[in-house]
Amino acid sequence: MTQIGFIGLGIMGRPMAEHLLAAGHALHVANASAAAADMIAAGAAGHDGYAAVAAASEVVILMVPNTPEVESALFGAGGIAEGLGSGKLVIDMSSIAPLATKGFAARIAELGSDYLDAPVSGGEVGAKAATLTIMVGGSDAAFAQAKPLFEAMGKNITHVGPSGAGQTAKVANQIIVALSIAAVGEALLFASKAGADPAKVREALMGGFAGSKVLEVHGQRMLDRTFNPGFRIDLHHKDLALALSGADELGIPLPQTAFCEQLLNAARGNGEGGLDHSAIVKQLERLAGHALGE
Amino acid sequence: MTQIGFIGLGIMGRPMAEHLLAAGHALHVANASAAAADMIAAGAAGHDGYAAVAAASEVVILMVPNTPEVESALFGAGGIAEGLGSGKLVIDMSSIAPLATKGFAARIAELGSDYLDAPVSGGEVGAKAATLTIMVGGSDAAFAQAKPLFEAMGKNITHVGPSGAGQTAKVANQIIVALSIAAVGEALLFASKAGADPAKVREALMGGFAGSKVLEVHGQRMLDRTFNPGFRIDLHHKDLALALSGADELGIPLPQTAFCEQLLNAARGNGEGGLDHSAIVKQLERLAGHALGE
Amino acid sequence: MTQIGFIGLGIMGRPMAEHLLAAGHALHVANASAAAADMIAAGAAGHDGYAAVAAASEVVILMVPNTPEVESALFGAGGIAEGLGSGKLVIDMSSIAPLATKGFAARIAELGSDYLDAPVSGGEVGAKAATLTIMVGGSDAAFAQAKPLFEAMGKNITHVGPSGAGQTAKVANQIIVALSIAAVGEALLFASKAGADPAKVREALMGGFAGSKVLEVHGQRMLDRTFNPGFRIDLHHKDLALALSGADELGIPLPQTAFCEQLLNAARGNGEGGLDHSAIVKQLERLAGHALGE
Amino acid sequence: MTQIGFIGLGIMGRPMAEHLLAAGHALHVANASAAAADMIAAGAAGHDGYAAVAAASEVVILMVPNTPEVESALFGAGGIAEGLGSGKLVIDMSSIAPLATKGFAARIAELGSDYLDAPVSGGEVGAKAATLTIMVGGSDAAFAQAKPLFEAMGKNITHVGPSGAGQTAKVANQIIVALSIAAVGEALLFASKAGADPAKVREALMGGFAGSKVLEVHGQRMLDRTFNPGFRIDLHHKDLALALSGADELGIPLPQTAFCEQLLNAARGNGEGGLDHSAIVKQLERLAGHALGE
Repeated sequence: MTQIGFIGLGIMGRPMAEHLLAAGHALHVANASAAAADMIAAGAAGHDGYAAVAAASEVVILMVPNTPEVESALFGAGGIAEGLGSGKLVIDMSSIAPLATKGFAARIAELGSDYLDAPVSGGEVGAKAATLTIMVGGSDAAFAQAKPLFEAMGKNITHVGPSGAGQTAKVANQIIVALSIAAVGEALLFASKAGADPAKVREALMGGFAGSKVLEVHGQRMLDRTFNPGFRIDLHHKDLALALSGADELGIPLPQTAFCEQLLNAARGNGEGGLDHSAIVKQLERLAGHALGE
Repeated sequence: MTQIGFIGLGIMGRPMAEHLLAAGHALHVANASAAAADMIAAGAAGHDGYAAVAAASEVVILMVPNTPEVESALFGAGGIAEGLGSGKLVIDMSSIAPLATKGFAARIAELGSDYLDAPVSGGEVGAKAATLTIMVGGSDAAFAQAKPLFEAMGKNITHVGPSGAGQTAKVANQIIVALSIAAVGEALLFASKAGADPAKVREALMGGFAGSKVLEVHGQRMLDRTFNPGFRIDLHHKDLALALSGADELGIPLPQTAFCEQLLNAARGNGEGGLDHSAIVKQLERLAGHALGE
Repeated sequence: MTQIGFIGLGIMGRPMAEHLLAAGHALHVANASAAAADMIAAGAAGHDGYAAVAAASEVVILMVPNTPEVESALFGAGGIAEGLGSGKLVIDMSSIAPLATKGFAARIAELGSDYLDAPVSGGEVGAKAATLTIMVGGSDAAFAQAKPLFEAMGKNITHVGPSGAGQTAKVANQIIVALSIAAVGEALLFASKAGADPAKVREALMGGFAGSKVLEVHGQRMLDRTFNPGFRIDLHHKDLALALSGADELGIPLPQTAFCEQLLNAARGNGEGGLDHSAIVKQLERLAGHALGE
Repeated sequence: MTQIGFIGLGIMGRPMAEHLLAAGHALHVANASAAAADMIAAGAAGHDGYAAVAAASEVVILMVPNTPEVESALFGAGGIAEGLGSGKLVIDMSSIAPLATKGFAARIAELGSDYLDAPVSGGEVGAKAATLTIMVGGSDAAFAQAKPLFEAMGKNITHVGPSGAGQTAKVANQIIVALSIAAVGEALLFASKAGADPAKVREALMGGFAGSKVLEVHGQRMLDRTFNPGFRIDLHHKDLALALSGADELGIPLPQTAFCEQLLNAARGNGEGGLDHSAIVKQLERLAGHALGE
């Protein structure tokens, strides 16, 4: 049994925390939200603020929206760093900037504690089913310590490399997923405009090298015109923005990612930021003046 | 047993013809090449020219490089159209322009014969193993007639729609494959420049939504720096050129396909047109001034 | 006085031919069109077919739509090559493929005659005012011989280099013009969406490094929503297609040109191929869901 | 004579401040830098910190690198806002984010003072020669008050619109300049690879619609291989990043700007961020495996 602090009990974080509780660990949360109250009712210990959570925990897990929220939870007034002390382990499971992550890990190391970045993919469905893919950056020792906790929350668990490598892998994941959706959109739109049935084309392509989960799942959503998320364009936009700000800092050109982010901008400008990311196809349709199956 | 004329006994066509022969069909070929001599030695009947092949056959199959070769074989001097007559079936298994295909089918229909476009994917390996994916455009009757022949050569056989729909599906396939390779290249290059091990990143991503045959196979080739084909950039360039000339004719924008074709142009300008299409990553590396794993 | 054959009496060709006639040259035309009848009424000599025109002329000028029309006029049945003989000069003022041009020049050289490629920019207005920009490829001697004729039709006359260099310069011209229009569109659209008055922005930018004829003329058309040509998108599409097929042959990547051609495809798919090329902005607006000044 | 506070005496700011002093205005600076000491020696009054400068001034001008520096100078501890009071005018001549600018103006308005954003183009040369282009956002009254000061520093002075409109115009300017340089690079590279002399091509194009200051100046730099700045890629990268973060916030797609920023990323990754922005062509050359004039 590990004493685990959990910061960020949102759509993803709450089912993750529940799996940890169900696996027999002690959970510590901050007395701030309705979700926290529910968790406390279910057996978690409530504390006043993150510093107190950190003080009571061996391992502190974060699952918050983006880089600034992680920075604030860690190093803001009354934050984790104030109560953590040495010999602890911080695990950031949020999806944030890889380069900032290295800095956060270094600052936690100065306190004498360890740090893992461990972002996930798989979405709400994966969080509830404990089938998340978890990409981990940090030391071997910290990974070994955290592994049983990860196994309570996910399935494909890979130690990718040192600090930041988990976030880097997540960014790479989001690049491929976004570009693959856009590629499927372009291909199906071409087929449709050429007079073929895009549903038949998708079916014909599934078995070969063009086949993928994206063609299967997102291709079908495009055909069904079912754009309720799934994974919202606003969130994927955030992830590609992380990719591109990383590219800016690293001096690496990501021309296709940059173009795809502009499609996401178009989606948001057209009021479609809340739709599933398969609605990238709607932006291509808008430009083409032709919609799938017309 | 069907009397089958087979035009185009190249790397792909020859094993396909051999499977038809092995399945008990009678094969008719033109006395032109060493491959034809081998086929004749194996039991095929040799004829002087395509018109004679067509006259002797119930079904004529073409497997040649591109649109002009199909047009010439069908309608050039001494071509198939001169000997074909009515009541026959022409099956073009080459990968050519969807819009030209509709015209060819119409001209064959004027002769009283039927026409299928049935391009394949799966490459030399699939041709030899009789596991090709076959995407078919044309009438239900013609598809029903040809299906046993397709089953001797391939596995995933889909009747996509009317004339041209097979070629359209093949173009869609090649769009997705090219863009997926480029997406994997961009993601792994980002990861590498960010200091992560791209091999570990690929491994971490395989199970999730970024996972695909392209990440599995071409991602590994990028990491191994093994760029012997596989499928040559020169050929994929031809296929994207078909996509883009189709887009020109249809008035459909394919921005990402257009960019990717420019990466293939770069490859060719750099003398890498003979490499496997996973060498798209080398063009991104060239621009980035950074190679995977550096 | 030079005996000049003139093939292609269209919107551009007719005023150009009239300038040559007005400059005191003898004009030879083919008896084919209403325009030819008008020219004959104005003093030109009529002939049956291009071979006869070529036989009667010292210099033969072509001003036709594209590469196939030039090839057919030169080398088709009854074409120029059949009547030309040696010691003559062919000047192709059409805008066609640079690489094909080199081949045409070589075939005319085999007949013992000389060849210049001399495409123009400046449009109908420039043709009528004899202020065309003329970009010339070919030998020094041929350029010296043709210069007085060019001076009857245009103003900025540059001998760019050997055969094909004129067409190459024209392609370069069309690349810059298209990309500049698209750049102005993107900048003004950004300004408009940010809440600034795009007309004021254009005005503020005119004096500096962003200032250009394109910002002045096409920027104003975008603001005025006056998209009557001018220069039609269909024609600019043809020119970028020449650029991109040249890029394919040369193995040179033109990523921005490739993207811009897709905007032109979108225009054509949306039924706007007949609008002025400043309507590129309408495609960006379509994607953005926001129009200038909204 | 106006009491003017001037914050930011760098390469641009110092000659601008000197022009104001030469025009007879009283200048107030912070005692922080060698440049300040020089200005004080030339007649400016020195103060301890920005708040004191603001207290002593009727108009406070800022000329600092980017958004965070403006925010800090205005609202940081000991910043302008602490000493400004009401009835003053703040003029930000830095090039920063348009959307942040609106917020800064609103916060200064709460203090009872007015705010103009007035970024410039024209570079060090224009700053020294007092020929800067100045794009101004803010109220009519503030613009009227500031106009004589602007006329001491620049030439093309345009009141573009309300708060933020000046910064928006500057972003639009930088979009057009970057894309125009990239367009010239693509066109000349095509010409060079096609075997034409790019210098001759540039010359032939100067008179027509492809002609621009960018073709004239940056085109020549590309040909001369003179990439000493001028305007550094690092700075233009900053400006396109402002454009793209604005696009993210506004939900406006800027596909070409996004691509061009990736070329600038490539430049930086290749250690060429300190070169003139005409070195964009070197990135295209890198991808092409061909350099101008090879």
